[in-house]
Amino acid sequence: MTSSMHTPLRIAATALLVAAAPISAMSETTEERRKRGDAVIKHLNNGAPQQVLERMRQEFPFLADATEAYALGDVWSRPGLDDRTRQLAAVAAFASLGLTAYMKVHAGYALNVGVSEDELKEIIYMITVPAGFPRAIAASQALSELFTERRAMPARPQ
Amino acid sequence: MTSSMHTPLRIAATALLVAAAPISAMSETTEERRKRGDAVIKHLNNGAPQQVLERMRQEFPFLADATEAYALGDVWSRPGLDDRTRQLAAVAAFASLGLTAYMKVHAGYALNVGVSEDELKEIIYMITVPAGFPRAIAASQALSELFTERRAMPARPQ
Amino acid sequence: MTSSMHTPLRIAATALLVAAAPISAMSETTEERRKRGDAVIKHLNNGAPQQVLERMRQEFPFLADATEAYALGDVWSRPGLDDRTRQLAAVAAFASLGLTAYMKVHAGYALNVGVSEDELKEIIYMITVPAGFPRAIAASQALSELFTERRAMPARPQ
Amino acid sequence: MTSSMHTPLRIAATALLVAAAPISAMSETTEERRKRGDAVIKHLNNGAPQQVLERMRQEFPFLADATEAYALGDVWSRPGLDDRTRQLAAVAAFASLGLTAYMKVHAGYALNVGVSEDELKEIIYMITVPAGFPRAIAASQALSELFTERRAMPARPQ
Amino acid sequence: MTSSMHTPLRIAATALLVAAAPISAMSETTEERRKRGDAVIKHLNNGAPQQVLERMRQEFPFLADATEAYALGDVWSRPGLDDRTRQLAAVAAFASLGLTAYMKVHAGYALNVGVSEDELKEIIYMITVPAGFPRAIAASQALSELFTERRAMPARPQ
Amino acid sequence: MTSSMHTPLRIAATALLVAAAPISAMSETTEERRKRGDAVIKHLNNGAPQQVLERMRQEFPFLADATEAYALGDVWSRPGLDDRTRQLAAVAAFASLGLTAYMKVHAGYALNVGVSEDELKEIIYMITVPAGFPRAIAASQALSELFTERRAMPARPQ
Repeated sequence: MTSSMHTPLRIAATALLVAAAPISAMSETTEERRKRGDAVIKHLNNGAPQQVLERMRQEFPFLADATEAYALGDVWSRPGLDDRTRQLAAVAAFASLGLTAYMKVHAGYALNVGVSEDELKEIIYMITVPAGFPRAIAASQALSELFTERRAMPARPQ
Repeated sequence: MTSSMHTPLRIAATALLVAAAPISAMSETTEERRKRGDAVIKHLNNGAPQQVLERMRQEFPFLADATEAYALGDVWSRPGLDDRTRQLAAVAAFASLGLTAYMKVHAGYALNVGVSEDELKEIIYMITVPAGFPRAIAASQALSELFTERRAMPARPQ
Repeated sequence: MTSSMHTPLRIAATALLVAAAPISAMSETTEERRKRGDAVIKHLNNGAPQQVLERMRQEFPFLADATEAYALGDVWSRPGLDDRTRQLAAVAAFASLGLTAYMKVHAGYALNVGVSEDELKEIIYMITVPAGFPRAIAASQALSELFTERRAMPARPQ
Repeated sequence: MTSSMHTPLRIAATALLVAAAPISAMSETTEERRKRGDAVIKHLNNGAPQQVLERMRQEFPFLADATEAYALGDVWSRPGLDDRTRQLAAVAAFASLGLTAYMKVHAGYALNVGVSEDELKEIIYMITVPAGFPRAIAASQALSELFTERRAMPARPQ
Repeated sequence: MTSSMHTPLRIAATALLVAAAPISAMSETTEERRKRGDAVIKHLNNGAPQQVLERMRQEFPFLADATEAYALGDVWSRPGLDDRTRQLAAVAAFASLGLTAYMKVHAGYALNVGVSEDELKEIIYMITVPAGFPRAIAASQALSELFTERRAMPARPQ
Repeated sequence: MTSSMHTPLRIAATALLVAAAPISAMSETTEERRKRGDAVIKHLNNGAPQQVLERMRQEFPFLADATEAYALGDVWSRPGLDDRTRQLAAVAAFASLGLTAYMKVHAGYALNVGVSEDELKEIIYMITVPAGFPRAIAASQALSELFTERRAMPARPQ
């Protein structure tokens, strides 16, 4: 049920060390938050940078920094939920809102931290209830694409 | 982190037995699905029936039956996710969609199956990212009400 | 299944005469559009003015005029759909979007033009599929209120 | 106004027979519900299976079964609304929610059961009021595609 | 802060003259409203007609007329907000609702009436708060495309 | 068109000084960001703290801190948009999303920084186009309440 076998140990360890720092510490600098966000993304993304984020950096620097420092550095690094649960809940939220492309990204992260394909399917089945069938069907199509892409990948980092 | 101390053993056992049946079995009758839904709701709701559902039964019988047989009996009883994870993901979905009243109900179920108040707070913090701050703040207010109501309750079933 | 017995004939006739005018005629004035909207609302609302609209008139005159001239005078008076079908489709749209108060108003209009309570319930059952169960349950609660209020009414106009 | 000339009689008859069964009968099995859903889809889709549904069957079997047994078999087969009204209300719901691809599918079903292109346009005009102009414009573009595709089709089943 | 250098003076002047007419005058005809809408679109679009609108005219004439007469002629021509502020608020609304294609069109209009690229970016940064990060990121990607397209354009009208 | 007569000079000056600091500076601490957020809220709210924010602080400290440090300290303090434009765009976003209570709060801030009631009404009229009439009508009702409450207030800070 748990598995971090395809998560390089070094990155996981870095992430844990960073996450162990007092997270919402008032004395922390934005540079420190941004670095923790960078560690989070590498932890979730098998050590690779996040392409969407990198493309924003030039033209929308505040949005790239906010995603890194706030979304990833402040929120996603919080210790109160384990990686698997947070990713599954995030997939439920993105799919329910019809944010299918973001759901696919976070479903990929979920697989990277040891969530199974079957668990992702269960989330999709569940959201028929709060969000209706079309949102679930759209999410299932994005998941199918993701599963296919990953089976075709020779190496790990996406 | 785990706790089923305020879930009567008898109900949990019933739910498990029912859930152990071949869930999407094609030979299953709607009456059997509806009964499993009833066991699910009692398992989540500390043995009590769900008030909203009961009020619908007279005037909107198909909606009451569909909620019971499909939403609870088919979806919520599936074995692929544990209760805690499904409830946390459901809370994320309801809160992201601005369905605050339903989020509150499912947050109550989450507490009943051993989720902690702090874990629910983490879900609320997380949804600032996919759904924005107002959805998270509205959800936090509903959670505050829920926590207050439960601390004021003498007995367990809500 | 059809019934216009509680729709005063005089109003219905006025509405039909107005609706028979070339509706999107480019030579039509806004005053004429607004008057047709007024006839539409009286036709739908058993001869009574629409309270929400009247309250907007003082502080938000453009919004009141636009609702009357565009929403009711241009759109709702179009001859291509019969009253019953337009009201049922509108109820489906409002309920799906979670605009429960507006759904209740248009469900009342639907009853006034001969739609049955059972047909409104069918719309609510249907939207579980595109919009999920919570939107349908919220709509069912608003419909229950509407049915109760109308049974308590001594006279017809609401 | 009504037309089932391009709906093969055999399928319509099957659908009616199935629909005449006690629909939410508690003794009905899921296999029976799924079969009724299959008859509904063939009735709406000119005798052809639904491609999206078939593609889901392998990887997301529960979602395919739930769409067939619940959405189509339980909801769409209910006798309280005629096919034309249900399809028009469904088009209004899908278009209002911005679920354009699903709206296009159900608009195709609507044409198959005798709804006219002009009636579909009226639904699109109507949703400018509850859902705003962009949702209506997006829906009009999908309808234009649908109308064009169907005029290019040599045979009936899509 | 203000700039109309790439807005042909003739069009701006026409728009102002038209806009100076008593806008919601009850004696105004729909043809007059439609003409004012046409002047508004040409003012916003550097003298060129709006392609999406023109494509709708044949098959969805009421929607084309309503967009022109109501959305542009009645609403967008109102004198109570300057062009720049209305366009920035519209971009915020479209982006928050996930209506990215419409946001891109209105961001182009905003640039045409003198809004800077940096001001558009600020709107995108702002909507992370009400609407969440994915809506802002999607909007940033559409803005990037728009900026690139305009830098590649030899002439002004788009 | 501009007016800061009911904004105490001292607070405005503080806000400007704080805002003049290098805003997304990587060396800035969270405490500094939080303090700037506090200055922003007092600037917008006539020197008074924000009640909703204060109520969250005890039970949802991360959400209170994130609202203060990120939403207000990072986003709302950015110099690229003037206060009036940002508030009008924010009102458009909140109203379009149906977040009426938050729209009301930000409309109050808008009035505090010199936006007129008529300008707020124009935003409400505008959103009928992207978001439909019900969202605009709901926003108009919240604005009516706000205008009434403020006329009844003896003193300035709300």
